[in-house]
Amino acid sequence: MNFGMIKYLFAIVLRFEAAFMGLSLVVSLLYGEFQTALVFGIVIAAMAIISLALGKKPANRSFYAKEGVIAVSLSWLIISVFGALPFFLTGAIPSFVDALFETVSGFTTTGASILTDVEIMEKGLLFWRSFTHWIGGMGFLVFIMSILPMSGSDPLHLMRAESPGPTTEKLVPKARQTAKILYFIYISLTVLEIILLVAGGMPLFDSVTHAFGTAGTGGFSIKNASIGAYNSLYIEIIITVFMALFGINFSAYFLLLTGKLRQFFRHEETRVYLGIMALSMLAIAFDLWGRVYGSFGEALRYSSFQVSSVMTTTGYATANFDKWPSFSRVLLVALMFAGASAGSTGGGIKMSRLIIMFKTMKREALRILHPQAVKVIKLDNVPLQEEVIHGTGTFIVVYGTITMLSVLLVALDGYDLETSATAVAACINNIGPGLGRVSPVGNFSMFSAFSKVVLFIDMLIGRLEIYPMLLLISPAIWRRRKA
Amino acid sequence: MNFGMIKYLFAIVLRFEAAFMGLSLVVSLLYGEFQTALVFGIVIAAMAIISLALGKKPANRSFYAKEGVIAVSLSWLIISVFGALPFFLTGAIPSFVDALFETVSGFTTTGASILTDVEIMEKGLLFWRSFTHWIGGMGFLVFIMSILPMSGSDPLHLMRAESPGPTTEKLVPKARQTAKILYFIYISLTVLEIILLVAGGMPLFDSVTHAFGTAGTGGFSIKNASIGAYNSLYIEIIITVFMALFGINFSAYFLLLTGKLRQFFRHEETRVYLGIMALSMLAIAFDLWGRVYGSFGEALRYSSFQVSSVMTTTGYATANFDKWPSFSRVLLVALMFAGASAGSTGGGIKMSRLIIMFKTMKREALRILHPQAVKVIKLDNVPLQEEVIHGTGTFIVVYGTITMLSVLLVALDGYDLETSATAVAACINNIGPGLGRVSPVGNFSMFSAFSKVVLFIDMLIGRLEIYPMLLLISPAIWRRRKA
Repeated sequence: MNFGMIKYLFAIVLRFEAAFMGLSLVVSLLYGEFQTALVFGIVIAAMAIISLALGKKPANRSFYAKEGVIAVSLSWLIISVFGALPFFLTGAIPSFVDALFETVSGFTTTGASILTDVEIMEKGLLFWRSFTHWIGGMGFLVFIMSILPMSGSDPLHLMRAESPGPTTEKLVPKARQTAKILYFIYISLTVLEIILLVAGGMPLFDSVTHAFGTAGTGGFSIKNASIGAYNSLYIEIIITVFMALFGINFSAYFLLLTGKLRQFFRHEETRVYLGIMALSMLAIAFDLWGRVYGSFGEALRYSSFQVSSVMTTTGYATANFDKWPSFSRVLLVALMFAGASAGSTGGGIKMSRLIIMFKTMKREALRILHPQAVKVIKLDNVPLQEEVIHGTGTFIVVYGTITMLSVLLVALDGYDLETSATAVAACINNIGPGLGRVSPVGNFSMFSAFSKVVLFIDMLIGRLEIYPMLLLISPAIWRRRKA
Repeated sequence: MNFGMIKYLFAIVLRFEAAFMGLSLVVSLLYGEFQTALVFGIVIAAMAIISLALGKKPANRSFYAKEGVIAVSLSWLIISVFGALPFFLTGAIPSFVDALFETVSGFTTTGASILTDVEIMEKGLLFWRSFTHWIGGMGFLVFIMSILPMSGSDPLHLMRAESPGPTTEKLVPKARQTAKILYFIYISLTVLEIILLVAGGMPLFDSVTHAFGTAGTGGFSIKNASIGAYNSLYIEIIITVFMALFGINFSAYFLLLTGKLRQFFRHEETRVYLGIMALSMLAIAFDLWGRVYGSFGEALRYSSFQVSSVMTTTGYATANFDKWPSFSRVLLVALMFAGASAGSTGGGIKMSRLIIMFKTMKREALRILHPQAVKVIKLDNVPLQEEVIHGTGTFIVVYGTITMLSVLLVALDGYDLETSATAVAACINNIGPGLGRVSPVGNFSMFSAFSKVVLFIDMLIGRLEIYPMLLLISPAIWRRRKA
């Protein structure tokens, strides 16, 4: 293990987090929140000092999968701990576990909150809270890669550990170029959403923070009633559409950027993703029509927003779907696990994994009839490696098992099954709200510190797709390589 | 497709079912239930006539996987339809869908009931209801194989489709001999249980029917309060132990029979199965102690029975575990899915699949660190074929997906999530009772006919392990083989 290289990476990570936090300090100053600005300043200074103490580029720059995995999982823990300090030190969140829960929830773009009233929080802290979504959405190590040349190491190991999906494709031959393109698309879409929200009459601060929450598919709002607080059809449509857009595989946008229109419209994952989304919107609208809302239009308005929010794992709300009929509630929980596309900012199991599993199921069934037949599974007409296919099945089973074990641990608090199970579902899939006590009008404050730790570990497991977190506790990774 | 051979098999199946039903007719006569005896007689006669009309051994005796799959899945449907007739024609269950639900629940050893009061049912029908558990437990096609020589065909195709587990081992080189050994163990254990129950003061009729329910890991009781009705520690211990015994892989008993004691005690699946069972019994006992039961002994008495019942997917009850604390309830639901051992009469995902997945997960995690390393996965020190390993992952994912879709369909009835979700869990895993309205003191009568059909298809999917049922609706199987 090259600890020198990992330490160096931590130094860079802290430097970048300090820079991001600097923006929040500026917001605090603009709104005249001088005490909070001071706290931001102290935390930034601490990060800078620690970064300087750690940061000397080592002579040995070898950086393999092992180092990549450790670097990513520990980096996420480090930025969360430092990111929680402003909430804790200002006293806005008096318990450190709560502050850490809120910050991990932010960076992992979960959006589950322990706050009972967000509207009393200062602007600088609200900005930082929403900004964590934007930073975590596309991955901050991918961001660093796009800026800093990392000579001597293979940055693909970092990208692979941080980017969601069964395979990590480089859009262009160089990983650094790929990271730049991803961030170009990410920033462009975010800016476009801010402009459209401001044009619709949403205040600038609200537009920026909500755009951060949409882009990262996070879901923290600065309103207690989430997007429902604005009661504006225009704003709901903009956010419904942008949530859906950020749930699309960014490789599809790259096809669009490079003028490959035909391939863009045929992009398999995107077609399945939009198809399932549209069908679910209609199915729930029919379930609500006449029972919850008088007109089909109104039913479709609320079902569309909630489906887009849950399937992209954002978690904004315009209605309390906990009060909806059973069919709608079960479908929303199913969509939580299905999740968005690979290579998007969304969480969950992801569309491409479901497509691979569906094709594998068909192959398995036919293998019973024709044991000798060998059939290759393709995604977008490209044959998939058998290892990817088998890895996908294992991934989903492990994901389900971790979910089950987490529900068991959270159930020790004694809350009803619906609350315990959907709290875990909402956290591991990085959504935010669930059903019961963690519904869109509820929050996560009542859980014990133990459950909160279980839940934020679930968020990290979901965001980093299991293995980086799992390997962190594996003895194999800490064992010295034999000479 | 060799339809001649399949028709011939259906003729044999009906003949055997008629013989089994004959035993129920005798019970009816013994208890002086002449009307019911008459109905049994008519149904038996109908089966005999249809069997004769179908049954001519065809000249072409080729019988491949395709035929095996179709024969098994359709046979299970046929015996269920004829098995339901006595309930329907006597008027004991006035709706045919309900009668079919009860019979499928019997043959698949689920034990989910639509009856609100079993104690008013006649003895002959109660006997038939419990007997279906015993017939379905080890598989009736396996039974037929053990009696009839099936020359010219490979009976392993039948056995593979009907016997649970990721791999189907022949204990001895000949499939027919294997079937005989399995039934020898099955009958011996059943008789032993009957003797022990009678010795404990349980009436003979009750002992026989409850032994049938234990052996098949079914769970139909002739008492409304299930085993709790006897309120006897001795009877509870006998049934706890025998449920656990019938959940053990029968290959382990074969090791015992052939004197391979060392291999028996090292049998991996059995050790994991008993280990998880013992740990769960203790964990739930601690959860109940002081909250539901005053003494630890009492808590352990009720936790042991319920854990053995749920994990073996039997479904007998001595307590209404729906009223237990959240942790115990979640653990019981997790055990429903875990299930018993492969090659036992129990349902669920099965221990050996979980062992394989656990080992695969470890391998996947290490592959990230050492992509070149090739590691073989072993079960009982025997290397597993890669196909079996990958098939296991796919199996579990498809199992989970079918569960999710079924919950969605059942939720259309509008019952609460806990009822809808655990009703499906209890049916697909072949347990019987779940939580909420389908708890041990509830039943399945309130569901719509549509939901009942979804649930009994789930029972068949669970019992036959997905693929035979899935292939039934696949166009590939009905397409004519190209010449």
